[in-house]
Amino acid sequence: MTRIYGTLFGLGAGAGNPEWLTLQADRILKRSRVIALPRGIARAVGRAEEIVEAYLTPDKYLLRLAFPMTQDENVLARAWNDARDQVLSHLTQGLDVVFVTEGDPSLYSTFSYLADAVLAKCPEIAVEIVPGISSVSAAAARLGVSLARSGQSVAVIPAVNGLNQLSQALDVCDTVVILKFSRVFDRVYELLDSRGLLPDTVYLAGIGTTQEEIRGDLHEMKERVPPYMSLLVVRQRCPD
Amino acid sequence: MTRIYGTLFGLGAGAGNPEWLTLQADRILKRSRVIALPRGIARAVGRAEEIVEAYLTPDKYLLRLAFPMTQDENVLARAWNDARDQVLSHLTQGLDVVFVTEGDPSLYSTFSYLADAVLAKCPEIAVEIVPGISSVSAAAARLGVSLARSGQSVAVIPAVNGLNQLSQALDVCDTVVILKFSRVFDRVYELLDSRGLLPDTVYLAGIGTTQEEIRGDLHEMKERVPPYMSLLVVRQRCPD
Repeated sequence: MTRIYGTLFGLGAGAGNPEWLTLQADRILKRSRVIALPRGIARAVGRAEEIVEAYLTPDKYLLRLAFPMTQDENVLARAWNDARDQVLSHLTQGLDVVFVTEGDPSLYSTFSYLADAVLAKCPEIAVEIVPGISSVSAAAARLGVSLARSGQSVAVIPAVNGLNQLSQALDVCDTVVILKFSRVFDRVYELLDSRGLLPDTVYLAGIGTTQEEIRGDLHEMKERVPPYMSLLVVRQRCPD
Repeated sequence: MTRIYGTLFGLGAGAGNPEWLTLQADRILKRSRVIALPRGIARAVGRAEEIVEAYLTPDKYLLRLAFPMTQDENVLARAWNDARDQVLSHLTQGLDVVFVTEGDPSLYSTFSYLADAVLAKCPEIAVEIVPGISSVSAAAARLGVSLARSGQSVAVIPAVNGLNQLSQALDVCDTVVILKFSRVFDRVYELLDSRGLLPDTVYLAGIGTTQEEIRGDLHEMKERVPPYMSLLVVRQRCPD
């Protein structure tokens, strides 16, 4: 007997502004009965949930999955296994499950770990990715600039694991988008300052939301601790 | 007397699939009367036009702008000036003009040049960017993979201007997306082969369209000339 499973969707809800959902995301959210979301940690309601709020009608089955912010591998493994089992309980009944992720599922998304865990237990499940507007594209749009013109290059670098890679990327690429610098902001600031890049750097947080903050002068930021989901755009050789 | 100009929109129509238009793009295309598009060169109808075809109703004023594929700066300057003047003729009458670009306006889009030309002649014009699903996000979605997980980095490198930068980016970044390699494909192939990266490289063309082609084995591609709008995704250290 062939079992017909539901499809697991990794759906990019775009970076902040609910209007950045795609028509494909809109269609899938409307027709699917099971919606899964990362549960908000600091906020009561997570940002992915804020973006797709209008779709979370009473006829939907909503899974708020907890992904604790910890390095403890045992705690993480338990959380992944629990999320996987909740999602699988619907998929194995033949229902599609739509896991909503802020931005684009292909960049730093929880979805890739969830999909791995699901496929490890049940390799027959079909997984589909619905691309979303990443925070990188959204930042450029809000700034009204190109990240790359003809012949230019872009790098996206998380700073939290050390600054060597960031330094090398600044050598190689015209535009560098820096993510996850909250805990090492003082060192990132120093690096950009030592290269004379502070005037070419823009800070963005809460892109596309009512809490959006954009600063072209990093000097004002020096003593602050930026939030986790902020980013820096360094445009070294772009003329516009 | 204050003149009220229209707004110039740079609208990302997403990379191929019409369902990758955002709700914001959908709203702006529906309400705007003047739609500008790059005229198709090889094809009679350009790809941006294919994507937004359903919006190009008879009540719209359609500007098909010609951007010749040439290095001749005089020819290019005349084309830019002509496009600028056509667009400005509507903006100065108070009408919004929506310039539709395939993918995301912040990555390798004609729009940044058009906006520059318009602003150089008429700095009072308001310019707004509507972000779109880039070919980079679209490629990851079609492959069902992450470009970057926690701590990993991504570079987007055009190959046409030389392979040094590509080689350096492969040293620095976990995932490298290579664009504009059509004319230098043999050299890109050799570089990837010499680094043992052919098995980690996927070729994509026509993403999201009926002509989509995806190949995981670059050996089959060796003697072919890939089309201009194709891309290569090299994932060096991603586990999924």
